[in-house]
Formats: sequence, C-alpha cells, structure tokens
Amino acid sequence: MNGDLDEGIKRLAWAREHMEVLAKIREDIKSSGALEGKRIAMALHVEAKTGILALTLKEAGADVRLASCNPLSTDNDVSLALNEHFGLETHAKYGESREEYYNNLNSVLDIKPDIIIDDGTDMISMVHTDRTELLDNIIGANEETTTGIVRLQAMVRESALKFPVMDVNNAKMKHFFDNRYGTGQSTFDGIFTATNLLIAGKNVVIGGYGWCGRGIAFKARGLGARVTVTEIDAVKATEALLDGFDVKPMLEAVRDADFIISATGCKDIVTDEHLQVIKDRCLLANSGHFDNEISKEALARHSTGKKVVRRFVEEFQLKNGKKVYLLGDGRLINLVAGQGHPAEIMDMSFAVQAMCAKYLALNHDNLENRVYTVPKELDEQIARLRLSTLGITIDKLSPDQEKYINSWHEGT
Amino acid sequence: MNGDLDEGIKRLAWAREHMEVLAKIREDIKSSGALEGKRIAMALHVEAKTGILALTLKEAGADVRLASCNPLSTDNDVSLALNEHFGLETHAKYGESREEYYNNLNSVLDIKPDIIIDDGTDMISMVHTDRTELLDNIIGANEETTTGIVRLQAMVRESALKFPVMDVNNAKMKHFFDNRYGTGQSTFDGIFTATNLLIAGKNVVIGGYGWCGRGIAFKARGLGARVTVTEIDAVKATEALLDGFDVKPMLEAVRDADFIISATGCKDIVTDEHLQVIKDRCLLANSGHFDNEISKEALARHSTGKKVVRRFVEEFQLKNGKKVYLLGDGRLINLVAGQGHPAEIMDMSFAVQAMCAKYLALNHDNLENRVYTVPKELDEQIARLRLSTLGITIDKLSPDQEKYINSWHEGT
Amino acid sequence: MNGDLDEGIKRLAWAREHMEVLAKIREDIKSSGALEGKRIAMALHVEAKTGILALTLKEAGADVRLASCNPLSTDNDVSLALNEHFGLETHAKYGESREEYYNNLNSVLDIKPDIIIDDGTDMISMVHTDRTELLDNIIGANEETTTGIVRLQAMVRESALKFPVMDVNNAKMKHFFDNRYGTGQSTFDGIFTATNLLIAGKNVVIGGYGWCGRGIAFKARGLGARVTVTEIDAVKATEALLDGFDVKPMLEAVRDADFIISATGCKDIVTDEHLQVIKDRCLLANSGHFDNEISKEALARHSTGKKVVRRFVEEFQLKNGKKVYLLGDGRLINLVAGQGHPAEIMDMSFAVQAMCAKYLALNHDNLENRVYTVPKELDEQIARLRLSTLGITIDKLSPDQEKYINSWHEGT
Amino acid sequence: MNGDLDEGIKRLAWAREHMEVLAKIREDIKSSGALEGKRIAMALHVEAKTGILALTLKEAGADVRLASCNPLSTDNDVSLALNEHFGLETHAKYGESREEYYNNLNSVLDIKPDIIIDDGTDMISMVHTDRTELLDNIIGANEETTTGIVRLQAMVRESALKFPVMDVNNAKMKHFFDNRYGTGQSTFDGIFTATNLLIAGKNVVIGGYGWCGRGIAFKARGLGARVTVTEIDAVKATEALLDGFDVKPMLEAVRDADFIISATGCKDIVTDEHLQVIKDRCLLANSGHFDNEISKEALARHSTGKKVVRRFVEEFQLKNGKKVYLLGDGRLINLVAGQGHPAEIMDMSFAVQAMCAKYLALNHDNLENRVYTVPKELDEQIARLRLSTLGITIDKLSPDQEKYINSWHEGT
Repeated sequence: MNGDLDEGIKRLAWAREHMEVLAKIREDIKSSGALEGKRIAMALHVEAKTGILALTLKEAGADVRLASCNPLSTDNDVSLALNEHFGLETHAKYGESREEYYNNLNSVLDIKPDIIIDDGTDMISMVHTDRTELLDNIIGANEETTTGIVRLQAMVRESALKFPVMDVNNAKMKHFFDNRYGTGQSTFDGIFTATNLLIAGKNVVIGGYGWCGRGIAFKARGLGARVTVTEIDAVKATEALLDGFDVKPMLEAVRDADFIISATGCKDIVTDEHLQVIKDRCLLANSGHFDNEISKEALARHSTGKKVVRRFVEEFQLKNGKKVYLLGDGRLINLVAGQGHPAEIMDMSFAVQAMCAKYLALNHDNLENRVYTVPKELDEQIARLRLSTLGITIDKLSPDQEKYINSWHEGT
Repeated sequence: MNGDLDEGIKRLAWAREHMEVLAKIREDIKSSGALEGKRIAMALHVEAKTGILALTLKEAGADVRLASCNPLSTDNDVSLALNEHFGLETHAKYGESREEYYNNLNSVLDIKPDIIIDDGTDMISMVHTDRTELLDNIIGANEETTTGIVRLQAMVRESALKFPVMDVNNAKMKHFFDNRYGTGQSTFDGIFTATNLLIAGKNVVIGGYGWCGRGIAFKARGLGARVTVTEIDAVKATEALLDGFDVKPMLEAVRDADFIISATGCKDIVTDEHLQVIKDRCLLANSGHFDNEISKEALARHSTGKKVVRRFVEEFQLKNGKKVYLLGDGRLINLVAGQGHPAEIMDMSFAVQAMCAKYLALNHDNLENRVYTVPKELDEQIARLRLSTLGITIDKLSPDQEKYINSWHEGT
Repeated sequence: MNGDLDEGIKRLAWAREHMEVLAKIREDIKSSGALEGKRIAMALHVEAKTGILALTLKEAGADVRLASCNPLSTDNDVSLALNEHFGLETHAKYGESREEYYNNLNSVLDIKPDIIIDDGTDMISMVHTDRTELLDNIIGANEETTTGIVRLQAMVRESALKFPVMDVNNAKMKHFFDNRYGTGQSTFDGIFTATNLLIAGKNVVIGGYGWCGRGIAFKARGLGARVTVTEIDAVKATEALLDGFDVKPMLEAVRDADFIISATGCKDIVTDEHLQVIKDRCLLANSGHFDNEISKEALARHSTGKKVVRRFVEEFQLKNGKKVYLLGDGRLINLVAGQGHPAEIMDMSFAVQAMCAKYLALNHDNLENRVYTVPKELDEQIARLRLSTLGITIDKLSPDQEKYINSWHEGT
Repeated sequence: MNGDLDEGIKRLAWAREHMEVLAKIREDIKSSGALEGKRIAMALHVEAKTGILALTLKEAGADVRLASCNPLSTDNDVSLALNEHFGLETHAKYGESREEYYNNLNSVLDIKPDIIIDDGTDMISMVHTDRTELLDNIIGANEETTTGIVRLQAMVRESALKFPVMDVNNAKMKHFFDNRYGTGQSTFDGIFTATNLLIAGKNVVIGGYGWCGRGIAFKARGLGARVTVTEIDAVKATEALLDGFDVKPMLEAVRDADFIISATGCKDIVTDEHLQVIKDRCLLANSGHFDNEISKEALARHSTGKKVVRRFVEEFQLKNGKKVYLLGDGRLINLVAGQGHPAEIMDMSFAVQAMCAKYLALNHDNLENRVYTVPKELDEQIARLRLSTLGITIDKLSPDQEKYINSWHEGT
C-alpha cells in the first residue's frame, strides 16, 4: 500500500498528544484487566484518532484488528503506520472498491471477535447475514452513529439482533460533542479544502436539524453564511426558526442555494425533483453517514455529462443547462476532503467507545439482545475527566443545597 | 385594587392577537366538550398572556379562578380587566404580602377544583397539606416549571402525591422555547428596564446551563457580553465550554462579574462566601423561580446598610466597603421589571397547558398518582400548529424514505 | 410639570455612578478654567445621562440651560429634578406640542449662549434664521448626530454657517459606540417595552447599514432574528451581505417583514409603495433622528382608521384590509419607549461633548465657520480614560517596534 | 519545477469560474485599450486567483511577468500551468531560498515594467535600491497590503518614493472584504489543515484588531472559541471589548492561550518575554504579511530543541520544560497551510488591482510621487458589479429624498 510511514507515525503521535481523556481511561481499563485477551474487531474511519483508540485498546490488553467503515475515509499514511510501525493489523486503504471494502471487513472478522466496534453497522450486519458462524463468540458490540442505531432498532423490531449493542452515539459525551461540534467544524475543513470558496454571504442550506445539522448550521452562520434549514420534524423546525435560521421545504430551498449540506441519516435528500429547480452552480456536500443523501442516481439521470474540475469536486452538466458540483463523491465531506473530527472531539467519543467495551466485557452476562443506552455514570466520568485535563473546576452542591433540591416543602 | 382598566383590556387584546396557536386549540377543546363545566384553579404569573390562557379555558367551557404564583409578578391592569371586564375571578395584585399571597391561593382553591394549573407547585403543595379536603375532587394537575417538577418528584419519592400531574415543563414545545428563548429575551427586558446599563463588553456570569441558563447565555453574548457559566454538572459544563463560554466555579467567577444572573432552580447560588470576594458594583439578578438563588439572608448578613437607588434596584453596602445591587428584590427579573415572556412563547407554553388540561379530563381514569411526561403527539400537534400559523411548510418523508429509515439491510 | 422628583434624583445619581469618564473630564476642565463663566445652550434628549452632562459642565464653571431636541424624548422626572433639586434651568417636558418645543428652544437661547450643544441641528438652525441677533456672541457649537451633520454640511455648501461646529458624531469614541452599541441595545429596550413580542425567529428588516443600522442588525441577530438589510450604498450592501444578512430593496423586504426598523437619516424609508405590499401585522419602528423615516403621511393616506392598541403602539387599518403597527409615533423608539442609550455609552459620547466644548473655548479664534472633525488626540484620550476606568491595560509599542513600523527597509 | 500541470489548469479554471467581477472588468479594460502593450511586473502570492489576475491583464492587452511575494506561498501546480499552458512567464516555486526569492523578483523586473503590482513592497523597494535603472520607465505601482503601505508611507516621509503608488489596500472593496472576511476564513482553512484540532472552547488570542484581526476574531468566535484581543490602540481596544472580546496585554493573554494568531503588521508580537510565561502546548500562527510577528529568533533563544511533528507544525521544546508549536514556519498560515483567500474575495481585491492599473495608465501624467487613495468611484463601480453578479438589487434615493438629504431647512 502507498503511504508515507513517517507522516503516519507523526500524525498518530499528534493525535495521541491531544487525546488525554483516552490516555487516562487506558490506565483504568488496563488495571481492571477487563479487556485482557479480548479479541476486538473494529470498523471505523481509519485515520489518526481511530488509530489511537485501537492502540489504546491494544495497550489495555486486547487483541485488535481494524478495517475502514467507508471506502473513501482511510488515511493511508496512518493505515501503514498502524500495520508496520505499531503491529496492529489494519485492513484499509483509501479508495477501496466495494469488493475490497467487504473483503477487509471479512479479514477483520476473521479474528473471531468477542467484541465488535462498528460505525454504520455494516460489520454488525455482516455477522447477522454472511458470517453467522461468528455470532456465538460475540458478547456484544458498540455502534458509533445515528445511522447505525436506526438500522439496529429496525433489527430489534424484527427480533433479529443476536447480541447486546451499546448505543455509543446516544451517550451525551458523544452526540452532544462529536455530532455537533465535531461535524460542525470538520464539515467546513472539508469544504474549504475541496472548494477554496467563500462561506460568508452564501446561502447555505442544511438538510436536517439533528445534532449534526445544528452543529453545521451554527458554524455556517459563524462563518458568515445565511442559513436555511430543512426538516421533517415540526418541533425541530420550530427550534431552527427560533435559533434564527430560515426554514423551508427542500424543494423551495434549493432555488437559492449556493451550498447544500445534508446531514439527515436518510436518503434522497436532494433528488430528481430538486435538481430540476436547483440554483445554477450549487455545491452539494454530504455530512451524513452514507453517500445516498445527495442522490447520485438522480444526478446521473439529470445530467448530460460530468467531469472532475478539481480534486474532490465533480461538475455535473444538468439537462436544463445548469451546472452543479458534487463534493467528495457525496461521501462524508469531513473525512473525504478534510481530516475528520478534531482530535479533542474524538478523544471524548472514543473514551465512550473504550468505556463501553470495558462495560460489555464486565456486564455482558446481564445484558439482553437489544440496544443499550450508555450508563449515565460513564458520561459523567468522561465529562469530569475532560474538564480535569483542561484544568477546569466546577461547583458542587452543598449538603444544604442537595437537601433543598430533594425536598418539596419550601416554597414562595 | 389600583390599576388601569382600559390599559389592561388593551394588553389582553394585544396578547390574544399574538397567541394564535391557543386560539386554534380553544376551538378544538370547545368542540370536544372535554372541559365543559370543569372547575379549574390556576396559580400562574397574572399578566396578559396568562389572562388569555384563563379566558381560553373559560371560553372552552370551564369554570376558572386565577391567583398569582409569585407576590411580585402580577400586572394589576390585567388583574383588574379580568375581574371587571371579563368576569373571570382573579385574586392577585402586585406586591402581595406573604399572607395575601396564601389567602389568594386559598380563595382560588375555594372553587373546589377538578384540575389545578400550577407554577412552582405552591398550590399543589397546599392541597397536600392545609387543604386536603379538596383532594378527593381533583382529577389531576399541570405543573409549568422545572422548579415545581423537582418538588413533585420529591413528593413522588415519598409517595406523597395524591393525583396525576402533567409535567408541562418537560414538553418540548414548552422547555425548548419558554425556558430558552422566552427566559433569554425577557431576562434582558427586565434588566434593561431596571438598569439602563450596557450589556456589551460586560462580564456576565450565568448561574446554571440548563435550558433557561443557556437561553440567557446566548442572548447575553448576542448583546455583546463576555459570558461565564457556572455549573454543577460536568456534561453541561463541557457543553457550555464548547459553545464558547468561560466555565468557572462561582467563587472565582464573581471576582470579575459585572452582572450575575442565576437560573438554576437551586438556592444559595450567590451566598456568603461569594459576597466576600465579589466585584465592586456587581449587579445581581435572578431568573429562577424562587427568590432564594441570590441569598437575601446572606446579603443582609454582609451589609452595613441598603437603599433603593432606582426602581427595581436596591444597593447593599457590604462590610468590605464594596457595593452590590440586587435587581427586582431577587425575584424573577423578567416578570418583576420586565413584561414576562413574549406573547408568542407563552402561546406555545399555554397551548401545552390547555392540551394537558384536556388530556387530564379525558384520561384521568387511566392515570396513576405520579408525574407524567406530555405525550409526544401533543408536542407535535402544537409544533405543526405553530408552523402553520406562521405559514411555514416543511418536508415529509416519502414512502420510500420511510421504508429506508425502518430497514437495516441497505449499507455502504 | 408632573414628575416624580425623588425618582428623578435617583435616576441622575445612578447615571452619574456609571459615567466615570465624564467624571474625570470634569476635573480636567474645571482645573483648566476653560468653561468658567461660559454660557452654554443645550438641546439634547432630556433624560438622566444628558442631565449629568449638563451638571458636569455646570460644575466645571459654565452657566447652562437645557431644552429637549425632541418632543417625545423627555424624562419628566429628570427634568423636574434638574430644575428643582439641582437648579439647572431646564425647559422640557414629555409630549411637547410643536409650539412648546420651539418655545423651549427659544427660552434656552435666551441665555445668550457662547456655545451651543445641539442634537439634530434645530437649535443651530434657529440662530441662523429667527434668532440671528445671537450669532455675534456664539463662538461655536457641537453637533451630536449624523442627521445634524448632514444638515450642517448643506449649510456649509451654501456658505450659510456663521460659526465653527465640532462634528461630535464623527469622533470615533462617539459613533463607533453610541451609534452602534448604544442604538443597537436601546432600540430593543424600546421595542421590548412597547410590544412584549418575540424577536427570535422574526423577519427583522433594517433600513440602512450605517453605524446605527449595523448596530441594530447585529443585536437583532443576537436576539435570534432573521435579518434583512436595505441600503442605497453598494459597498455597505456588500458588507451587510458578507456579515451574513440578507440584502434586498425595501419594496421586496416589506413583503415578509415582521418588524421594520429604520435608521437611515433620510425620509420616506417606508412610504406609499411599501404599504401597498407590506406583510399583515408588520411592526414599524424608527431609530433615526426624525420621525419621517416611516412616513406618517403615507400611513394616513393608506389607512381607513387607526387606534392606540397599547401604550406606544398605534394600529393602522390599511385600505387593503391589512393592519400595521406604528411604534412610538414613529419617533426614536429607544427614547420614546425605552430609556435611551445605556449610561456607559453616553459617558463616552458626552465625554466627547465636554471635551469639544473645552476645545471650542480654547481654540475658537483659530477656527473657521465650518464643520470640524474632532481632533484624534481627544478620541485617544477618552479611549484611554475608558479603559482605565475599567481597569484594562493594553500593549505599547517598544522603541524597536516603533522604529520598525516607521521604516521601509526590512522585508521578506 | 515539480507540479501537477493538469491540477494547476483545473485550479485556474475553478478560480476563473468564481471571479466574475474581474471578468467584467477585463472586457472594460480591453475595450478601453488602456493597458495595450503595457509591461507589468507582478509580485503576488502565486496561486490560482493571482493567476487569473495575471491572465486577465494579459488578455486585456498587457505584457505580464509574475513572481511570488513570499517564499512559501506559491502553488507549484498553478505556477507550472501559467508557464506551460498559458505562456505567462512566472518565476515562483514553493519553498524558495532567500536567494531564489530575490532572483525571481529580479527576473520579473527584467521585463522593464511600466507598472508594478506589489504585495508587501519588496519589489517596489528593489527598484528604489538595486534596480534604480528601471525607475525612469515606471509610471506607477499598486500595493496590495497594509504592511506595504506602512513601508511606502515611510518612503514618502523621506521623499524617497519615485513614482505614484495606488493604495489598493485602502480601497473599501479591498480591505473591508479581503482583510476581514478573506483573512478570517482562510486563516482557519490553514489552521484546520495544519492541526486537525478543535477551535470550539479554546482560548484564542488575536494579536491586533485591525481589519484582519477583527475578521479572525469574529470567525474564531463563530467557530466556538473564547477570544482575547491584544491591541496598542485604545480606541480599537474599546471596540474589541464592546464586540464582546476579552482585551488584555499579550504578556497576560499568553498565559491561558491555546492558540495565538498574530495579524498586526508589526514585529515581535510574541517574543522573549511572552515565551517565558506562555501556556504549555500553545499553538502559534501568523496571518500578518511578514514572518516576524511570532519571533523565530526568540523561539530559537528560548528552546533546547525543535522538531517537525506534523506537516506545517514545528514543536519547540522551551527551556522551562514547556512546548509550543509554530505553524507554517510563522509565515502567512492561510497561504502556507491553506489555499489563501476564497476566490470571491480575491475577485474583489483583484478587481481593484486591475482598475488601478488602468487608472495609472490613463492618469499617471497627473499624479505625484506619493501614495494615492483609490478613487471612490472605482470602489462603487466594483461594489455594483459584485452585487449585480449575485443578482442582488438595492434601493436608490428618490429625487425627493436626494433633495431632503441635501437640505438643512426641514427639522422636527
């Protein structure tokens, strides 16, 4: 595999330097012995921060293999460094074909995992379909994304899920931060790199006002954009409005859109009907997990031709004479054209991952085959570690305040 | 009672004009007959928007009496207009003594209510202590505030609660909007009126980063302040930090504070230890429910004297030679010195109240004596009404998208 | 005159407490003797901060009389306190008729001023038309507003101006702060009081993107509004756009406007053509100097009736069946319904006024009959006083840096 | 020279696509014939947008040569494409030595220019020192930066300047936009790429609150940072404060700084005294023209060692045991690690450049050897073109309003 080994090693060291919560948790897990000898199959975006999670689990005693959860999100330098410098078996390269992608997942599964750490639930899905021979050995899994949880809940409804899954995404220390501030910043890291265009003064349309969408919306405004939000949920739409954003149906929003950034977890957010009325030279980006939010099939149907006009930018000539630009092949723009979430964000998300792996190892006997919310205590522990690594202290309730909060007798 | 009848009538008309969701719900409840002949005892801040809720319930068929839930939050003009012009029995005046306050609650309870609508849980507390003869007739209650819910949950823990209570505060259409945008704006309405001082460039310390606290924090920043947040919850503290605010313990924050605004639902947020090191001429305001967040006892203990220096502003001369200013007697600054939440905000909150009253009337037989979350459907119905009165449409899932969201088979 | 003497005294004391720059300048002028025995005629908004300027000049040795520069901007309590408690002759009451307004200006001019301090240039205009007998004695004047300077420059073009005028408005320490942060905050003080309506989520249209307009625009956004700017200047329009605001012609902007706030210094910003297409129930406010920005003539022409629906709010029933609301009679909303600029802002603006009065007294022999920019040194002195009263220190150039900045030899 | 020709061509095409104002101006200049046969020596950052300016001037009839104004800001792909595909003589490569840098400037000067277009004034400086034989032929120059203008004004004070220079930087359409929004966004493009670290929640210290500094400060806040500004000018410091930023001397600010970004135009903003107390692991970036704002000499003096820890990031081990990171060798971070200003920003800046070149060609006979402000009409023309390419229309004064604005008779 191509890659710059030295650069990969450096990038891992830089990430480690800025992932201090995970460092503290590694010591905790190691001394607990909870993951000693456990085999862990991981499918995540293979870049420096993920590398540190994998190495952390390894250093805490586990046997770890790593594949990518997305064909375009691997940092080859890091993949090389993990394999060659750190001896951590990694099956991932940038630009995998569909076949290579699934081969890599299979190679990682060959470790016969006790625990799966997944992002998007492709790997979990595989052990429920093609690799069912592995099910017996699996004590549980972690899932990183909203998208994956939606799929898992569908499995639960059909009684298809065969082991407990920790909903890492639902941990406050994950989705409050990773989805909101991580996606918010890194989406623009990707867009800056891909386009070198100005955000200030542009009409930026955000598909979805979930945690990711609102993170992107706030950062877009912080960069000077005029922001329009599309939603299917009336409560979230009202929130977006009172947060100062325009709210419109996508079919109306696309008419004035300079940028459309989708972050819904659903498909066909921009599709045939929108392309017919979209603003000329609109830029289309996706920050959702799968590359079906901006429909590439619809783009193909409505175009007379296409060409790469810049790295990460593909121009589609529409039949109506307009042009639109698809960024990063419609895949996660923050990972394809940017460097993914900032290290400090992944420090918190992966702290949840590591703590949940430990939790599964210690508690799997008492868990059912369903999706579990991360225990509140883990969230609080990680939050306290985060503040302490920053040197920030906060208030504590006095005994008197504690008593007051728990009483109903005092009044006006 | 003193008051300007004509001004009260006008203010009610103005509120009604801007409470369009409630208008639609009135028609719905009326035609359902659910509240026909029901006796409702209300204890809320008696100002124009509350008046419209009371009148709405009356117009929908109920028999309604109204008291104030706070001695300093009554708008006398509105109280007069409700009594004299609209014939709605209202027991409330601005500046009630403690005795008058409880007398008024008792007078309202004399209606022998089927339903209680409360704000802070003083009235609910009374029927569990002094007016237990009323318990038999009560089918349930609504509670408006975080503070009240905290008290009610303490009652539930002690098995003291004798009827079901709808946690109105927990409805998304209430706390997302009322606590955040309502408190955010109206706190500054009150502070502007009380002080005529500049917010831009000031160090504003916000006690608490719950929905109220973050609403105030964002508006303070929007007005140009440098904002510091104090918290006891590490997760919320981390959120405040990543939202761009300083996070400190109160004991440190007070040293540089130009304004301290408390919104925690707990007592003694600013107390003895803080007054010893507080910045000279700091302004102290409260946006929490009770007037014990800024400790008036501590102020008395640490002062050599005090005087009213302006309407709503009391100066305390501290023993260390500094001065501090208490705004609005430490009571809800947005209601004491301002006009309370904007009409459109209360339109949503009171839509929840009205819907919950209807819900109690229709479903009380199936409810236990505990605190109930507002059904999701009510939230969504109100949100859709809100958007529709604004002429805003949003997207809908296509059948194909609906299927996709509910399936786990599609992947990368 | 009606008014609450005690409240007026308190309000003046409160303002004095928060105008620390002016306090330091008073000592400076007093010890210089520059204004000893000088007669000063002032026409400003008569409220507490203005009172402190007048008292400051008096305490520095001048003989001062004060009138209002606007029929609706007088605080009667303050006017009473100035006259009765402080013995400073003040001719101003709230709600003056046109005749009373001009009578008051004349009474103040009867002092036979050496110096005029004006706001809007009505008083300066009078001594050039009806009271020309006073011209000989006048050594110069200060003008506070953009509007006034526009009028004075017209006079200069016609060689009509008979004494030097200091363009106080153009001082950085005035227009950077007073127009931007002062108008920004106090406009919403006025609107909150007048309407008790929500800003978040509303379409707020700002007429003009000068210093006042941009101050209002930023605060509107800070309060959660969606903001549209109208302009006649293409450069400013481009700035507004890149600051993240929508930019449209007024005729288009009014169609979706929930609020229109005008701050242009020109007339007929909202006039006949706009009223024909304006959004139903739009609220119209003015933050510009004169009450002709929202055309009251046009409102009269297009209405079938009107009524006061709330203090400071007049409803006009338009011929097309819609309603619009005019706030504060179309006069400066921040002074009519609010309390004017915050004390700390006026501290800086009036520091410029006081310094310019001293400057005129010392330098009038060398000045021509034209409009003068405030000397840069005065600005810097006031800025340094401002920072020092706040306890803020800033950096200084080292000798080496000073040399570097002044050299052209060093390069890449 | 190494470089990817195809990528360079694409990047130029992409820039051209987004520089629509310049396209319109090209037609205007071409048809005027003003630059027909003129020889133009350019020293600018050689990347795609600059390439389009050079090609625009060439297409308008001029003979153009191009060098880089900074050793680390050349995009080799673009340099290659200009030379090989477009036949525009370009002397620039990434990572020039000091000798190569000056050799390239000399090679460009060998064209015997009529007009110089400079950025930082190194080339203008050379023709006044080493290449004085060229002076006779030069009719004038444009200078792009604040830094360059500071140097030129020093030359004027010493009567050293031998031809007129257009102060392009001072054009509103340049510094309002390029310095503020351009530097604001592109600084973070560079920092994202260099560090992959989080901005939200970080203490970001901005050196200088000029147009660049405030652009960076607003974007930093927009990305969630807590921002502190350092200044030497008391007026600007007061503005920063009222814009909601902390204001401190650098010596105090560095103690808590996670990032320091300098944008002053002066040297030694971070130097010996600051390194002694700086926060451990602080990241140091420069957005000012020269690489002496963060003193590399001071870093060398205070360090025991250094190493490259990541592309664009050099770690210095300080003698006190702390580490700091210098980004992009202390050179313009937006150009070294990012892609420079967005295309739409440079469209406006380079429109000023092109218009000024035309202006010099047509008016040089009437110009003196000093620094000229860009005529207001050019600014307005460019602003109108900018709005028109965006399809935005704005208001015009009616004849009646025009008359009103120019009259002083109407009043209250």
